[in-house]
Amino acid sequence: MKVSEIGEFGLIELLAKAVAQAGLATSPALAIGIGDDAAAWRPDGSLELATTDILVEGIDFITDIVTWEELGWKALAVNLSDIAAMGGIPQYCLVTIGLPADTEVESVARLYQGTIDIARRFGTSIIGGDVTLAPLIMLSLTVIGKGTEQGVLTRSAARPGDLVAVTGYLGSSAAGLRALTSSLALDYETTLFLRQAHFRPQPRIAEGQMLVKNDVKAAIDISDGLIADLTHICQASRVGARVWADKLPIHPLVRAAFQDEAVGLALGGGEDFELLFTAPAEVMEKVRALLSTPVTVLGEIIAEKPGEVTVLDAQGQTLNLEEKGWDHFRTKR
Amino acid sequence: MKVSEIGEFGLIELLAKAVAQAGLATSPALAIGIGDDAAAWRPDGSLELATTDILVEGIDFITDIVTWEELGWKALAVNLSDIAAMGGIPQYCLVTIGLPADTEVESVARLYQGTIDIARRFGTSIIGGDVTLAPLIMLSLTVIGKGTEQGVLTRSAARPGDLVAVTGYLGSSAAGLRALTSSLALDYETTLFLRQAHFRPQPRIAEGQMLVKNDVKAAIDISDGLIADLTHICQASRVGARVWADKLPIHPLVRAAFQDEAVGLALGGGEDFELLFTAPAEVMEKVRALLSTPVTVLGEIIAEKPGEVTVLDAQGQTLNLEEKGWDHFRTKR
Repeated sequence: MKVSEIGEFGLIELLAKAVAQAGLATSPALAIGIGDDAAAWRPDGSLELATTDILVEGIDFITDIVTWEELGWKALAVNLSDIAAMGGIPQYCLVTIGLPADTEVESVARLYQGTIDIARRFGTSIIGGDVTLAPLIMLSLTVIGKGTEQGVLTRSAARPGDLVAVTGYLGSSAAGLRALTSSLALDYETTLFLRQAHFRPQPRIAEGQMLVKNDVKAAIDISDGLIADLTHICQASRVGARVWADKLPIHPLVRAAFQDEAVGLALGGGEDFELLFTAPAEVMEKVRALLSTPVTVLGEIIAEKPGEVTVLDAQGQTLNLEEKGWDHFRTKR
Repeated sequence: MKVSEIGEFGLIELLAKAVAQAGLATSPALAIGIGDDAAAWRPDGSLELATTDILVEGIDFITDIVTWEELGWKALAVNLSDIAAMGGIPQYCLVTIGLPADTEVESVARLYQGTIDIARRFGTSIIGGDVTLAPLIMLSLTVIGKGTEQGVLTRSAARPGDLVAVTGYLGSSAAGLRALTSSLALDYETTLFLRQAHFRPQPRIAEGQMLVKNDVKAAIDISDGLIADLTHICQASRVGARVWADKLPIHPLVRAAFQDEAVGLALGGGEDFELLFTAPAEVMEKVRALLSTPVTVLGEIIAEKPGEVTVLDAQGQTLNLEEKGWDHFRTKR
């Protein structure tokens, strides 16, 4: 069997099983291992977090359309978003870069600048890394952080009866990619908005901490797409979920530009790096009042059909979904 | 200017400068930032360590000659070696893998097994990572560990009057690469020894901890080659060094197979992942008696010519060196 058949999540499961069988998945201080947005352990009393993510040229970005600064920004943003999904505080970053020999040093300086810009905004120190020759551009970053005193948000803490909510808007990043790689004629404001959404995502660091401090327990960040990421929560929590398609938060500019397609982008498009979380109604009410970022309730957690997400239309009818989010090995972008 | 002209170390310096200018190189808890084998910080009282290293197909390995298990082993070994060079204790590992879509799942399982084998040997838990589609194979690993109570070994602690020593043998890995990529006819024992040296390096974890517990302060691991890595120590410590070419520890099998070439391999060949360290004579005497691993004194630290390494032959004459170690961007392997 080829890796394209087993898929990204199949490979992660394969690793997780082999590691568990070898007795390497546990250590006295380990709190969370393979399978959440970040790993967590307690060196002393405190809770440390670590996460890593890689961007590869031709797979995660095309040099024709992304600037070096944007690339440097996004490589750290996707990692910070994983810390946000744990409700954590990012602290340190290790930056590993692979570059073709004929890359201009000036370009590398711009790439570093993009990373530095977002590191500074989120109070993250850049403490090390590696540089290597490579046939194509690749950025592999690791972020280390800590949990708040209230612990961390996990994928496995959703309970039947919880409401499902998301920060910000969905589908903007996927809409951005589509706009950038097609010949759509869009006005300046929309073009700029979509480009920012795709290349300069804003990790929800403050929001994640606010959630964990106010009794939210379950969260994930939207990297693979709403359906795929909610499915991750359902599988880890052994619950089911219903999503109400007419409640999806879609930005007016995306709705205007993509019309009927916008719902598909919001359900299946990834890389919005918003926080998807679940909580009982009273907790949800509290955090909606506390957060200045928009929070939209778009579904509910149920006991039935564990591991599955059902999407309902405005009439309560089940929608037949073709797009199931982004699986790196199965889907071509 | 192209990155091939500025080189790997030039790019790291560029990043370090930009990070420092942005005020991102310091944080209250940060002990060691960019420029040593690992970064170090103190979350509470303890000293945490993190390091990252990437292997890229065609640059760091050729699939024709390496097995999947060896690749998985080596990817973690090079990171563990950085922890060893700090005298640290490895604890956690994040594994990021990029793979072509047509890779056999069976191959990936074997790769994981290689990583698991070495993780188990050195008591390292595998706690997370990332899997992505890529046009070629790449392995980007991060290891997190902690320092002993005696602190850490650094590149910047060498002092004039120190002796320079190395664990094990030098040049075996480079000899192994040469044997594997040429048509040299070698006996079975030599072939096996060289293959192990190149593909299954043994990080000197126990040795590093023993050194730091017995008053050694300065160390680095041999990844770029003796001259290059000793130069790193000299630059970070603002001292000079003399190496005595007739004292180089060269394995008898390497000397027999490569004869006059062996000295060049020992001086310039990288990836032996031995520990190169400096200490006053009385400390050196103590650790040589304590370590069961062979330790060879091969030079001395001097105040003159800071940042430079001079190699002397048996007659005390300066050797003219062409091979200056392995700089990823400047040298083709």
